[in-house]
Amino acid sequence: MEKIKNIIAKNDSLVCVGLDTDITKIPPHLKDKEFAQFEFNKDIIDATADLVCAYKPNTAFYEAQGEQGIKELKMTCDYLKEKYPDVLLILDAKRADIGNTNNGYVKFAFDYLQSDMITLHPYLGQEALAPFLDRADKGSVILCRTSNIGAGEFQDLRINNKSLFEVVAEKVVKLWNINNNCLLVVGATYPEEMEFIRSKTDSMFFLE
Amino acid sequence: MEKIKNIIAKNDSLVCVGLDTDITKIPPHLKDKEFAQFEFNKDIIDATADLVCAYKPNTAFYEAQGEQGIKELKMTCDYLKEKYPDVLLILDAKRADIGNTNNGYVKFAFDYLQSDMITLHPYLGQEALAPFLDRADKGSVILCRTSNIGAGEFQDLRINNKSLFEVVAEKVVKLWNINNNCLLVVGATYPEEMEFIRSKTDSMFFLE
Repeated sequence: MEKIKNIIAKNDSLVCVGLDTDITKIPPHLKDKEFAQFEFNKDIIDATADLVCAYKPNTAFYEAQGEQGIKELKMTCDYLKEKYPDVLLILDAKRADIGNTNNGYVKFAFDYLQSDMITLHPYLGQEALAPFLDRADKGSVILCRTSNIGAGEFQDLRINNKSLFEVVAEKVVKLWNINNNCLLVVGATYPEEMEFIRSKTDSMFFLE
Repeated sequence: MEKIKNIIAKNDSLVCVGLDTDITKIPPHLKDKEFAQFEFNKDIIDATADLVCAYKPNTAFYEAQGEQGIKELKMTCDYLKEKYPDVLLILDAKRADIGNTNNGYVKFAFDYLQSDMITLHPYLGQEALAPFLDRADKGSVILCRTSNIGAGEFQDLRINNKSLFEVVAEKVVKLWNINNNCLLVVGATYPEEMEFIRSKTDSMFFLE
């Protein structure tokens, strides 16, 4: 939380830049390079590092390239950590397994890639996510109300007088955030839901 | 579905063997090998391939080893596909992102690793999961009622007269299964819930 506040103050920015590097859309002057995804990310990072508070690579774009993609994701994270250590690194991995299995993802996200936070599905509950939540030095960014068109299929289901996304938000705020390391994903495509969730969550940070 | 039925008949087995290969628990005679995770998996596969209907590597144990782990996961999948092509390969990845981002995971699971199925979180809804569901040649295994102690935190929430896990099961059976390629994760640790879900889902296959 200290790191978040510091970089927001330093760069006067709340902008998070996605590094969703689709190999088929890399510009011609980079696409034949040995590490094209990394080179593209490096250019974006160098051009924006004083304007942002966070970078957010989405693992899907790297896993699509198999072993090579994971290598380039690591190169990207290493570059960011070495050159711009103040800027946040959010791994948009949308993971969540049960209990000890999550230790593997914890190791991948926090040790191997050195990311500061990871995005997580809530469906398996707090007990399952303990290996993430227990890492007081790292952020757990829980999916609450997502930005996609069909987000409401489950997230808007009514439980007594509340939506499922509201129940998720309340549980995270009141029960899961013991280490003051939780954040919520709240899609900016739904400003009304966002305003409502804000009213229930004090000053908890949102990834929008 | 054809492939599932054929291997169940051929090996007279409903057993799915997990390949959750924790690098710290590999036996001494293998642990110093260059590809220790793969060698361990290979031994398990060769010892059991005529007794099972499926293998299920969980990605967390391979991602924990970074690029090297992904390489050994691929070696495992390649070995299985080449030597025992009739046996099912279920990638226990518990993924789900929004829309096109899922194409990266589709490519990872179905093209790069050649798995037959992948496990998926339901929270983002059918619309988000379309890149998986649209692959009529591959299985989407949706998390419904999971096996962990804290599974009920969200999954048991009551929506009118139903539990959330029941709503998930019904939606998958009635709406998501257009291509007859959906399965459900129903933890065998909850036999009552399993019996109930079975009563709502006809002959849909469960991963237990």
